[in-house]
Amino acid sequence: METPASSVRVAVLGASGFAGGELLRLLATHPFADVTFLGAHASIGKTLGEIHPNLASLALAVQVLREPIAADVADAADVAFCSLPHGASAELAPALLEAGVKVVDLAGDFRLPASAYPDWYGFEHPAIEWLGKAVYGLPELFGEQLPGAQLVANPGCFPTPVILGLSPLLSAGLLEPGTIHVDGKTGLSGAGRTASDAALYAVAQESVRPYRVPGHQHTPEMERGIELASGFMPAVVFVPHLVPAVRGVVTTAYGSLAPGATTESLTSCLLETYAGRAFVRVLPPGEMADSKRTRGSNVVELQAVADARTGTAVVIGALDNLVKGAAGQAIQNFNLVHELNETAGLTSLAVYP
Amino acid sequence: METPASSVRVAVLGASGFAGGELLRLLATHPFADVTFLGAHASIGKTLGEIHPNLASLALAVQVLREPIAADVADAADVAFCSLPHGASAELAPALLEAGVKVVDLAGDFRLPASAYPDWYGFEHPAIEWLGKAVYGLPELFGEQLPGAQLVANPGCFPTPVILGLSPLLSAGLLEPGTIHVDGKTGLSGAGRTASDAALYAVAQESVRPYRVPGHQHTPEMERGIELASGFMPAVVFVPHLVPAVRGVVTTAYGSLAPGATTESLTSCLLETYAGRAFVRVLPPGEMADSKRTRGSNVVELQAVADARTGTAVVIGALDNLVKGAAGQAIQNFNLVHELNETAGLTSLAVYP
Amino acid sequence: METPASSVRVAVLGASGFAGGELLRLLATHPFADVTFLGAHASIGKTLGEIHPNLASLALAVQVLREPIAADVADAADVAFCSLPHGASAELAPALLEAGVKVVDLAGDFRLPASAYPDWYGFEHPAIEWLGKAVYGLPELFGEQLPGAQLVANPGCFPTPVILGLSPLLSAGLLEPGTIHVDGKTGLSGAGRTASDAALYAVAQESVRPYRVPGHQHTPEMERGIELASGFMPAVVFVPHLVPAVRGVVTTAYGSLAPGATTESLTSCLLETYAGRAFVRVLPPGEMADSKRTRGSNVVELQAVADARTGTAVVIGALDNLVKGAAGQAIQNFNLVHELNETAGLTSLAVYP
Amino acid sequence: METPASSVRVAVLGASGFAGGELLRLLATHPFADVTFLGAHASIGKTLGEIHPNLASLALAVQVLREPIAADVADAADVAFCSLPHGASAELAPALLEAGVKVVDLAGDFRLPASAYPDWYGFEHPAIEWLGKAVYGLPELFGEQLPGAQLVANPGCFPTPVILGLSPLLSAGLLEPGTIHVDGKTGLSGAGRTASDAALYAVAQESVRPYRVPGHQHTPEMERGIELASGFMPAVVFVPHLVPAVRGVVTTAYGSLAPGATTESLTSCLLETYAGRAFVRVLPPGEMADSKRTRGSNVVELQAVADARTGTAVVIGALDNLVKGAAGQAIQNFNLVHELNETAGLTSLAVYP
Repeated sequence: METPASSVRVAVLGASGFAGGELLRLLATHPFADVTFLGAHASIGKTLGEIHPNLASLALAVQVLREPIAADVADAADVAFCSLPHGASAELAPALLEAGVKVVDLAGDFRLPASAYPDWYGFEHPAIEWLGKAVYGLPELFGEQLPGAQLVANPGCFPTPVILGLSPLLSAGLLEPGTIHVDGKTGLSGAGRTASDAALYAVAQESVRPYRVPGHQHTPEMERGIELASGFMPAVVFVPHLVPAVRGVVTTAYGSLAPGATTESLTSCLLETYAGRAFVRVLPPGEMADSKRTRGSNVVELQAVADARTGTAVVIGALDNLVKGAAGQAIQNFNLVHELNETAGLTSLAVYP
Repeated sequence: METPASSVRVAVLGASGFAGGELLRLLATHPFADVTFLGAHASIGKTLGEIHPNLASLALAVQVLREPIAADVADAADVAFCSLPHGASAELAPALLEAGVKVVDLAGDFRLPASAYPDWYGFEHPAIEWLGKAVYGLPELFGEQLPGAQLVANPGCFPTPVILGLSPLLSAGLLEPGTIHVDGKTGLSGAGRTASDAALYAVAQESVRPYRVPGHQHTPEMERGIELASGFMPAVVFVPHLVPAVRGVVTTAYGSLAPGATTESLTSCLLETYAGRAFVRVLPPGEMADSKRTRGSNVVELQAVADARTGTAVVIGALDNLVKGAAGQAIQNFNLVHELNETAGLTSLAVYP
Repeated sequence: METPASSVRVAVLGASGFAGGELLRLLATHPFADVTFLGAHASIGKTLGEIHPNLASLALAVQVLREPIAADVADAADVAFCSLPHGASAELAPALLEAGVKVVDLAGDFRLPASAYPDWYGFEHPAIEWLGKAVYGLPELFGEQLPGAQLVANPGCFPTPVILGLSPLLSAGLLEPGTIHVDGKTGLSGAGRTASDAALYAVAQESVRPYRVPGHQHTPEMERGIELASGFMPAVVFVPHLVPAVRGVVTTAYGSLAPGATTESLTSCLLETYAGRAFVRVLPPGEMADSKRTRGSNVVELQAVADARTGTAVVIGALDNLVKGAAGQAIQNFNLVHELNETAGLTSLAVYP
Repeated sequence: METPASSVRVAVLGASGFAGGELLRLLATHPFADVTFLGAHASIGKTLGEIHPNLASLALAVQVLREPIAADVADAADVAFCSLPHGASAELAPALLEAGVKVVDLAGDFRLPASAYPDWYGFEHPAIEWLGKAVYGLPELFGEQLPGAQLVANPGCFPTPVILGLSPLLSAGLLEPGTIHVDGKTGLSGAGRTASDAALYAVAQESVRPYRVPGHQHTPEMERGIELASGFMPAVVFVPHLVPAVRGVVTTAYGSLAPGATTESLTSCLLETYAGRAFVRVLPPGEMADSKRTRGSNVVELQAVADARTGTAVVIGALDNLVKGAAGQAIQNFNLVHELNETAGLTSLAVYP
């Protein structure tokens, strides 16, 4: 890792959303990144403080949200974080990339093969030539592909803990290949800042609800990520649920335990895989994962349990969907692309309680 | 169903807890039940209004909590609802039963074979002779055993939706026998009223946490209940999670879909099984279960989805753990034992939002 | 009170909102009311179950929401509950009243003198001739005006506990006339079901926020209601706050204690005023009000404290804003208009926890 | 401000509580403070990570909680943050002070004159000789007394916004001297980590409750702090309420507006008083305070409104009770005692949403 000669100029596109706000909160503590462009489709002309009052005191060179026109972004910035709605990145990114801007895409637009987009995202991919060049930015597994990468597909909030938790166990032969059942729970911030009946306080409080069953677009991302990391392509069934929380994702994955595998051997495998990694906390046997302990931090907790009675492996992950599940992991990717310290801008501890 | 010559005298034992309070709230609207004994181990000598302020205006003949001595209960009541801690019912119930009192037990003390208690509940069962006589009180499946029953084992909150949802599909051949993964989510009231760090507001809010993995005592109850209802004994892996809610249980069960089965055929099977049942709401394809819609009511929602891509059946259930998952179902059992209208005392609609 | 020869036919206008849903939930248990018309401006053509899933099992003669055209309402119903946005009732009610329909208005359209509407509600009142005929429907204070009344202005959620708590103390000389500071706290359901940024779960959770300071329209309603009841017109300063709850209003009012008045004398005055009233619970000295204990019920809690050190009287009220603060009180008014038992349809206990 | 030759060695006493955890979270980012002693009365012998899992990755020289024996603390540390229960600091601090350790006390033990302790705290003060030497550590008003101070009484969470908001207006003659009504709202973390029925999730959710009326110990602290800052001693009536949140305090103070004062003149006065202060955000007229926007940060929001109609000034404050209301302000005081940059360790932005 290096100290750069000068800071990197970054654009935050989608700065009016929750993930955009979180990018700006974290970048404020980054020693080598200067925010030089704030882009959004909504709220154009507003100041940052009007949209994110917690950022009102932030001393940025730019304060007003602008339409993200590729040429303007390319003039102002070396790297663009695209935290735009699915589909919008795929439209905008090629022009940025061709203008020499590096892109870290927080949407799902560069995570899957082209053939998957019509079924899972509902659109034909408009920039297939770039899909093959995108690095899937799960740094703990694919970090070696990041230095110098021009386009990074930042993983989804649910796939992150699932791929991190299952891939090493498959590679080590502790988990049998085959069907995996993934049960997801997420707080409301994952749904973004758009006002809808389902996102109202009066509707969401005291409500546990599955949604988008069985067609959630993170399903093929989990399958592909696990295959990339382990060589085994599982069939994933994924059922996400909304729970009454603002932040937090917990995934509980069920698969077939290899003969002889135990809670201890599963845990050891994960501990060895992630030894020395700043953001992965593998829980000792008996300790239970808890999304609350990750709030505001880039930590992901992993817990593995062997149920010998039924021959089942249960692998649980917990993270803050806006940090390790979005903005924090994007900055981690940014750091590795630029061969900076992986933890730059990401040292803050979880806020508890 | 009959109008009884006179009301049934009932004792509520464990009246100081959340389920005890819910029994009293619901019994207040019951046309044929008179509460004549309030028993508790804690709070003896206190009045109901001191413990449950929402019940302060309740005009009961008895107002003060007493120690539940079997002879006193038998003097005062024809039926005892035992909402005591696990193990306490098994100690108290035999004396009540021998004195001619009918017992509806809300604890887990009469739900399993004797051999299961040391492993799953941590005690040797002290009243094995009564275990075989207990009716497992899931009225929609075993209601024909209830009229006149002396001892009813009221099901657990998690097993209720799982057994109701899976058994008909197994019986109909739409779900393959084999391992079932059950992912549970529950609000904090399920943990009872005992103050503990894990149950604090500051600790539970924004927290999604698995617990008691993989040894939760509802696991063998699910296996046994499904076997009783369908003839097929699945292996159940059960992972419960605490979510930031007061009331509400959602169970998401994953199993192998039989060839050719569809969301429509699964749904039809459930609709036919529960046609005419007042408290089971089978959701049409596309509608998602939601625990919030059941709050305060005895309704359980069931949703079935076939994922043809992976050959998986997903069966989701939602209920209020204090009503259909405890006090409401106990009253439903009480009604059927006495051949009353099944809905007596249970007509209130869910409170929403 | 009488048993009517036949049920009263009622229209619920604004049936798609939270208060409309609550009216229907409560009316479902009413022995002498038949819902014969469901009106709404939004959601026309939808069924009740699509909008309020907790009401899906409700067996009403009407199931589909219709536009509330006065002639159609008058054909179908004897009484209309108008739970429409402010201003809409004032437009619709005159035609209903002239067609012989009784109206219980849950909006603020008939609570104030005509001169107050431009300043506090932002419109010129379109039906001044009816304003003088409206009975202000706070039954515990003005119940004698209700029998046979044609138009009832149902009080606001904040004014209800304030007027009930302060008026008797002013009348008895225990509280000095003068300025009253009223601090209000309300859950999100008071803001209605319209999706807005401020009402989002992610925005409202962990947020305590004042709003509409100092111009909230309940201010003059408090002043006028207290004057009607006590003869003293206070100057009220009212600051409402949103707190992270769905239901519940707590008002904390501060005024000048008369010399010699004590917590005991304030409490005694309230106890005497409301002796025998089913829905007012005056708390004994030392017990603290709690909105949670009123959820789903028509109870209002009142607590009075004398601070001799500073010569201040503090009067606290707590209620469920959708029940005693809206739909429940409207039904209570309906009962008294028809000389029915005041508690008809309102006997359900609070749901706790 | 200076860069010290070396870091200051600090002890955190009461490290197992919420405020203790917050001190450690914030000190982890402090450039000139080394935590060298962890003291607690409970949890002795446990590691930090066992108690505060969000701090598990914290690389401190000390990791195990010890009994806070004065001599041991004095050996290890130059400064002690005492976040102990009320009364415990007054017992321990003298020995620390006599051993040359500086003390920042987060309890209420050095905030009042000796004569106030029996009435408001229920004990005779055991260290009267130190009371007169304590600096009341509200840095924006009394900061000039802090450099070199040996004993700092860190203000309470409720008094902080009240004294900051009212004192300048009294000094400027915009607020009339006299009685002030202060209505407080706080989340549950203010009650500490002790398990009690009132602090349970199931009990606190959907509950708005006053408590300790009218004798809350922050009342005389408000009166004294305002007098120290403005020369005017008001009579304060203070009614705190628990609301369903973890963090956050909002205070709404009502007093008599001076003739001619307006929202603009009140706001200007506050803006001028706090111009250039890093942690006070005075809201422009029309913007409403919101506790959520301060979470995790040391910011306090102040909002002033003139109600000309009634001659009332309303002054609203919002902060995070664990940061500006406790641990953050304590570190701010520590910085000023040592003539460091006031914001050292306190630069993190609020976490939103």
